[in-house]
Amino acid sequence: MEATTLVATLKATLVAVGSEMVTPFRVDTNSLHVTERLNAIGYGVESKVVVADDRAAIVRVLRAAVGTVDLIVCTGGLGPTEDDLTREALAELLGAPLEVDEAILDGIRARFAKRGLEMPVINRRQAMVPRGASVVPNTFGTAPGLWAEAEGTQIALLPGPPREMAPMLDALIASRIRSGPGGGLFRRVLKVTGRTESDVDAVAEPIYGPWSRAHPPISTTILAVLGQIELHLTVPAASRLEADQKLDPAIEALRQALGDAVYSVDGRGLEQVVGDLLAARHVTIAVAESCTGGLLASRLTDVPGSSSYFDRGMVCYSNEAKITLLGVSRETLAQHGAVSEPVAHEMAAGVRDRAGTTIGVGVTGIAGPGGATDTKPVGTVAIAVVAPDERLNRTFRFAGPREQIKYQAAQAALNLVRLLLLGRAAR
Amino acid sequence: MEATTLVATLKATLVAVGSEMVTPFRVDTNSLHVTERLNAIGYGVESKVVVADDRAAIVRVLRAAVGTVDLIVCTGGLGPTEDDLTREALAELLGAPLEVDEAILDGIRARFAKRGLEMPVINRRQAMVPRGASVVPNTFGTAPGLWAEAEGTQIALLPGPPREMAPMLDALIASRIRSGPGGGLFRRVLKVTGRTESDVDAVAEPIYGPWSRAHPPISTTILAVLGQIELHLTVPAASRLEADQKLDPAIEALRQALGDAVYSVDGRGLEQVVGDLLAARHVTIAVAESCTGGLLASRLTDVPGSSSYFDRGMVCYSNEAKITLLGVSRETLAQHGAVSEPVAHEMAAGVRDRAGTTIGVGVTGIAGPGGATDTKPVGTVAIAVVAPDERLNRTFRFAGPREQIKYQAAQAALNLVRLLLLGRAAR
Repeated sequence: MEATTLVATLKATLVAVGSEMVTPFRVDTNSLHVTERLNAIGYGVESKVVVADDRAAIVRVLRAAVGTVDLIVCTGGLGPTEDDLTREALAELLGAPLEVDEAILDGIRARFAKRGLEMPVINRRQAMVPRGASVVPNTFGTAPGLWAEAEGTQIALLPGPPREMAPMLDALIASRIRSGPGGGLFRRVLKVTGRTESDVDAVAEPIYGPWSRAHPPISTTILAVLGQIELHLTVPAASRLEADQKLDPAIEALRQALGDAVYSVDGRGLEQVVGDLLAARHVTIAVAESCTGGLLASRLTDVPGSSSYFDRGMVCYSNEAKITLLGVSRETLAQHGAVSEPVAHEMAAGVRDRAGTTIGVGVTGIAGPGGATDTKPVGTVAIAVVAPDERLNRTFRFAGPREQIKYQAAQAALNLVRLLLLGRAAR
Repeated sequence: MEATTLVATLKATLVAVGSEMVTPFRVDTNSLHVTERLNAIGYGVESKVVVADDRAAIVRVLRAAVGTVDLIVCTGGLGPTEDDLTREALAELLGAPLEVDEAILDGIRARFAKRGLEMPVINRRQAMVPRGASVVPNTFGTAPGLWAEAEGTQIALLPGPPREMAPMLDALIASRIRSGPGGGLFRRVLKVTGRTESDVDAVAEPIYGPWSRAHPPISTTILAVLGQIELHLTVPAASRLEADQKLDPAIEALRQALGDAVYSVDGRGLEQVVGDLLAARHVTIAVAESCTGGLLASRLTDVPGSSSYFDRGMVCYSNEAKITLLGVSRETLAQHGAVSEPVAHEMAAGVRDRAGTTIGVGVTGIAGPGGATDTKPVGTVAIAVVAPDERLNRTFRFAGPREQIKYQAAQAALNLVRLLLLGRAAR
């Protein structure tokens, strides 16, 4: 069912070199960016390898891929220290000697001179090039990249730091890397919240299922992420423009079927979608939080420019704070308990009144692991939104550890605000 | 400089099977856990491979590793669908036919029966075992693991879901996987905040440098993470206990040299360290935030049990909210500007007075991208902490995009609270 294996005509193997990535602490993430870029010019990634700073191991990895894939993109191991062995490994693979490239050496010296420094002797290693390989200039660092071909496989060696690697990869795509004959793979992401994965799939599969057998096929992958479901649509096309012409009606068909549960088809996160709605309608907001502990305010204020619509957030853990700061009544607390829709409503109304904003939001719940009662287990969250002519209350039951419950509650609160702003929040 | 290559006696290759991990959206994370567990029994991970659901490609990956490493741990691709090809790939590698294992079949049937369901025909695939391989029971799912040996290489196939994979790996470590003769590699992490990576390295290197040449060697890796520096110490030892006996004095020496900048040597995050200090001293806290937008409150309340010391958080973006909710004076705002130590102090004092807590914290700054002035660039953040007999004010200048500035500011605020609680915050 996977897009990459479905339609890619060319195959790539990605190699990341670095001992820090074979510890329990770091993963390779460069490969995500490289995959996206290569997919767009017709490569499917068949495998990705992370290998320690060990020359023999690097050679083994390269040798296993040469002759079996069309392209190897190798990142890392081009620095100036003795740990940096990718150049040597390529030379061994090619059976070619390493030679000093005087132009590179001059370039590195110039970089240091610019900062008033002399080039350390150690950096001389970065000017070594296996005979027969060519140099890929690096605008943002001292390590040049290398390019070679062997047994029909194109080989690109790029430095590890993303800000150096990414523009060098783009330059290679524009110049040396062969593109697939039919263009590449292009994606769009449709984001859904408030429904389960199986629920979304039951509605969406009858629509996207036939697309995989169409010409050209559109493949669909469902990813369940915390608090949301993503539908990734992939299509082969000659260009982004052509891809969008094919994907626009597909996106529209899914949006029709899934309705208001779809909050984004252009990559934006939920806090950005809500922020854009608030800004466009000149609506202001204030939030009162208990179990989310400030996360809702923090997500709203992650959006640049949020100060134009976000007035204040009150994190009221104690009942006393809810009473004195928000005007929640002792009676409501006693009668319904702190985790209840009436208290959430009084929190929302209280913060809205005090802030003088258009909208007020109240969130109260049990993030756990403590605090559960017989009738209210961990994960119970009541959320209220109050606007001039409208009020909404909902109770949710989220699963997972504390931080996941907080996140899902903030997500649900943002979604209620979105639905209210769209006028589609009728119970 | 890397621990793994320094002392491991046995070599492992980790393989993750799944087309979703060769897209631009997902990375393999199982390998981090597997690496930690294998390091502890004497294996260094030489390489990690992610491979698509493609039988020929999986066979190629396995074949490249067999005979060159002591152990292959392969996760994923053991499910019941046609995409799940790891069993078939192992059979091809071993040159052995796949045979139905009736005991497994009975077990899978029983799992379904327990839920009142009949086993779907498709699940029969999960009972196929290559002749000569043995079965690794799975307590938490239907996919059994497989175990084989070829050309001196041990091969473990485990399912992808972490909750199924982890206990099966532990069972194999306890039963079948050979341990290194000298035990394994064990780690401790020392976490530092408020100092730069080069600063930490300048102080720490003269201390840890000689350890790498000692017997047994202790290797040290510095990792710069947002808002903190981590020192990872690794030592070969027969057991965790023996490792700690070697690591305790090393940790202590670094702690002495780095002083109060070290906030954790036992894995705890900064919000947990601060929370534990607050709880142990029966001290309560309230926070007033501007640029961090609720993130400081959210991190404090990420800690289970934080309701015992965290009273409230006020997110006051507007000057008006600072004045009415916190009692910040118009004069101070006019004279010093909203981003200033005097305003941060009045925010801290104001929230403390109103909440009646022991400690108050105020944070005000420019998270960007807008809001900078000639004298106050993006990233300028003033933080104040007020306690019964003490007050602290600091101004920071953080780099990075909006969310990173928010995180670093929350980190700095937590650290000031920590230093104040330790009585070591004198300016």
